[in-house]
Amino acid sequence: MKIGILGVTGRMGRAIGNAAAEAGVAVAGGIDREGRVHGDHGDAAALAAASDVLVDFSAVEAFATHLGIAIRAGKPILIGTTGLTPGHHVAIDEAARTIPVLQSANTSLGINLLRGLVEQAAVRLGPDWDIEVLEMHHRHKVDAPSGTALLLGQSAAKGRGTTIQALSRFDRIGFDPHAREEGTIGYASLRGGSVAGDHMVIFATEGERIELGHRAESRTIFARGAVKAALWLADKLAGRYTMQDVLGL
Amino acid sequence: MKIGILGVTGRMGRAIGNAAAEAGVAVAGGIDREGRVHGDHGDAAALAAASDVLVDFSAVEAFATHLGIAIRAGKPILIGTTGLTPGHHVAIDEAARTIPVLQSANTSLGINLLRGLVEQAAVRLGPDWDIEVLEMHHRHKVDAPSGTALLLGQSAAKGRGTTIQALSRFDRIGFDPHAREEGTIGYASLRGGSVAGDHMVIFATEGERIELGHRAESRTIFARGAVKAALWLADKLAGRYTMQDVLGL
Amino acid sequence: MKIGILGVTGRMGRAIGNAAAEAGVAVAGGIDREGRVHGDHGDAAALAAASDVLVDFSAVEAFATHLGIAIRAGKPILIGTTGLTPGHHVAIDEAARTIPVLQSANTSLGINLLRGLVEQAAVRLGPDWDIEVLEMHHRHKVDAPSGTALLLGQSAAKGRGTTIQALSRFDRIGFDPHAREEGTIGYASLRGGSVAGDHMVIFATEGERIELGHRAESRTIFARGAVKAALWLADKLAGRYTMQDVLGL
Amino acid sequence: MKIGILGVTGRMGRAIGNAAAEAGVAVAGGIDREGRVHGDHGDAAALAAASDVLVDFSAVEAFATHLGIAIRAGKPILIGTTGLTPGHHVAIDEAARTIPVLQSANTSLGINLLRGLVEQAAVRLGPDWDIEVLEMHHRHKVDAPSGTALLLGQSAAKGRGTTIQALSRFDRIGFDPHAREEGTIGYASLRGGSVAGDHMVIFATEGERIELGHRAESRTIFARGAVKAALWLADKLAGRYTMQDVLGL
Repeated sequence: MKIGILGVTGRMGRAIGNAAAEAGVAVAGGIDREGRVHGDHGDAAALAAASDVLVDFSAVEAFATHLGIAIRAGKPILIGTTGLTPGHHVAIDEAARTIPVLQSANTSLGINLLRGLVEQAAVRLGPDWDIEVLEMHHRHKVDAPSGTALLLGQSAAKGRGTTIQALSRFDRIGFDPHAREEGTIGYASLRGGSVAGDHMVIFATEGERIELGHRAESRTIFARGAVKAALWLADKLAGRYTMQDVLGL
Repeated sequence: MKIGILGVTGRMGRAIGNAAAEAGVAVAGGIDREGRVHGDHGDAAALAAASDVLVDFSAVEAFATHLGIAIRAGKPILIGTTGLTPGHHVAIDEAARTIPVLQSANTSLGINLLRGLVEQAAVRLGPDWDIEVLEMHHRHKVDAPSGTALLLGQSAAKGRGTTIQALSRFDRIGFDPHAREEGTIGYASLRGGSVAGDHMVIFATEGERIELGHRAESRTIFARGAVKAALWLADKLAGRYTMQDVLGL
Repeated sequence: MKIGILGVTGRMGRAIGNAAAEAGVAVAGGIDREGRVHGDHGDAAALAAASDVLVDFSAVEAFATHLGIAIRAGKPILIGTTGLTPGHHVAIDEAARTIPVLQSANTSLGINLLRGLVEQAAVRLGPDWDIEVLEMHHRHKVDAPSGTALLLGQSAAKGRGTTIQALSRFDRIGFDPHAREEGTIGYASLRGGSVAGDHMVIFATEGERIELGHRAESRTIFARGAVKAALWLADKLAGRYTMQDVLGL
Repeated sequence: MKIGILGVTGRMGRAIGNAAAEAGVAVAGGIDREGRVHGDHGDAAALAAASDVLVDFSAVEAFATHLGIAIRAGKPILIGTTGLTPGHHVAIDEAARTIPVLQSANTSLGINLLRGLVEQAAVRLGPDWDIEVLEMHHRHKVDAPSGTALLLGQSAAKGRGTTIQALSRFDRIGFDPHAREEGTIGYASLRGGSVAGDHMVIFATEGERIELGHRAESRTIFARGAVKAALWLADKLAGRYTMQDVLGL
């Protein structure tokens, strides 16, 4: 089993190389942001031919080129590149008719399992259970709430048979506070130190609380999850997959 | 919808009366530990006839009598009495051929949902995720780990396709400590103050942790869950049910 | 030792009566919101004369009357009434020249100890430790952050030699997020279920975090703390005291 | 300001070199376990002469040699080597008559601050507050409870005016459980994944809990704390110091 890494010299590309080594998986080589091919391959087509699965964590500008390499070689591709537009998603759906494609904004196995559990809990617990999402990240993070907190809220909303847009409340603290409205999902964000990412979804009702949380020690978990997902994807039929599929959820 | 309470003057019997009132459910009456019938009923058979469902949180000595009342009246019964023997379970199985019976050592909805989530997580996460169970209770609790911690461990073991007996490690601290063995489930207990019951199941692997927890503010949640389960049970066919069935798990 | 309760029929007045009974402390009687004297006393002066210490958890409208009763009887008074204006604080300072007065917006021993620990931590840890305050309360609470969260932030600001006004950031989530500014104190609020009040102050730096938290199981802790503080106050000299003094901080 | 590192090629020695670089502090050189001198120095005496402070995280076998180097050069020394015997402590006391010496089994600033806060809390809160110590570490740790958990218990015991030996209870779970005894300190340990070290001291009484915790993201915090402590020590008078002194506790 050999992995080809698209975006091989980037922060995530190198992390995936390390995670593959740690898992005893061979790396066929890669392509860097300047389009240079790494490893003993004449060009991108040769690299793809020598790989059992491709993993793409690169810039959105290179997305079309990278997806094309996978399609032409008929190889499975895991896409972790962020900032995708609706147009990119149309291209992914198109590609999935001929090759296996797994696209995810968060490749941590733990977070993806948590999403499944949160959805289950939201299905089973009635609207008298209030849902809150809490996250903490390092002091340099500029957006709030985190993208992962929103993914968790999305899973909770799905469990309740509606969308995150219909339920989210972001403005609890400030100049016009107010009592909680039944059925909403509230978000709270903490920032400080070098926290890699803690998330917790709280279901609270009269007399009891359920707390479903995840703690990341470092960002290497995304690389580890991506390698596991790539191995899973390597022998699948053409189609579009998610991390939930990898977990069998 | 009317509930008949067996063990009506006990701590849980009174709590169930309160929880029923809170939920707008009528109480037909009850039977106390001396066998006296409460409410406007001539005897136990009349009480049972006037009830849509019976709830039994009493002493194990009264168990056979109470189950007999339900069977003769052909009424559903929820059994929360603890200390049942294998013989009692045989009698429950027998009764379930003619009436709906739900027996559970813990009637909190939150804890029972958590059990389902823990089992799911144990199914999906491989043996490289270590499982630990932590609980905290008030200073007067004499047993450790708590019965609920053991139920959670049982759910984790079931998710791993084995039994709690095969996996549990209780003796971590002490004179002969040692490294963790892969695949075991460790337990830790805290005691102090008046804590009604906190439980957490931790799944930990290289670089990340999932924490699935429950916090009880008071013991009234068991009465509330029992009333909800009794309402659910009232229109079921004969058979033996669990709290997992109430939650649709 | 006997306690006189001003606002004796209110929610806190009754809780203080219960907490006194629990602690084996006698209640001399009380005055209700209509000015009626409870217990075997002809009037307010007689009640005050029969009390070793007065405790006032009532409406701000009755504040001047209640303080006057204590001053005329020369008796110590603990004031837990909220909504006090600067004018009330001037009156308290004046009263403290002749009688012992302890005024506090939060009479929980645990919270007041936590305030002392937070101040200590803020003194000892440099500005490279980010400070965040998190709180969770029941779904019906209309203000955010909680008054106690602000008290904790005030303690942290004091430890850093400045004021809470200079440091607080309330608007992290929303339409204009941004990176953390060094030295600020961020607040996050969760609302749900029936949570009596959880608070946590987090100090986070590169590689490590200190979390200083408090969990209230019910609002009775304020009554218990008030009774302990009243007993402490009973034999003090004239002066204005705080809960920190009761704890010897 | 220049640091000399004794045990320079060991895991902690290299971490201290990195932490010094990160903090902008120069490293004069070091001595490895074979006694080789690193940096441009003819021998150990020259290295010590070129250093403002020495830091020793090495093997206990080299302890006497390393302490002798500091004494002869008249230089301050921070000692983080573990496994010291009573005889080593006598030698440290002797050395402290002529040079500044700081010896600590845990050089994290956060843990040492927490120790001070725990002692304060134990002083202020009466025996009706139960004390429990919880810790979690990675799956490979063989001893339980952790040395740091015991240090925290020691601080709590000191705050209560007694010793850890008099209060500790390690055997809560198992074949002979029992109710909590007033005044004891209970320990609980969790093991799993790659957790660098989480600790929490809980003070619990009727109706409320105080939780004082620390989370380490990696073991580099010990090196960072050692560098800060070494800088603090460099200009002190002869004497024996602790991490508490560095924090001004």
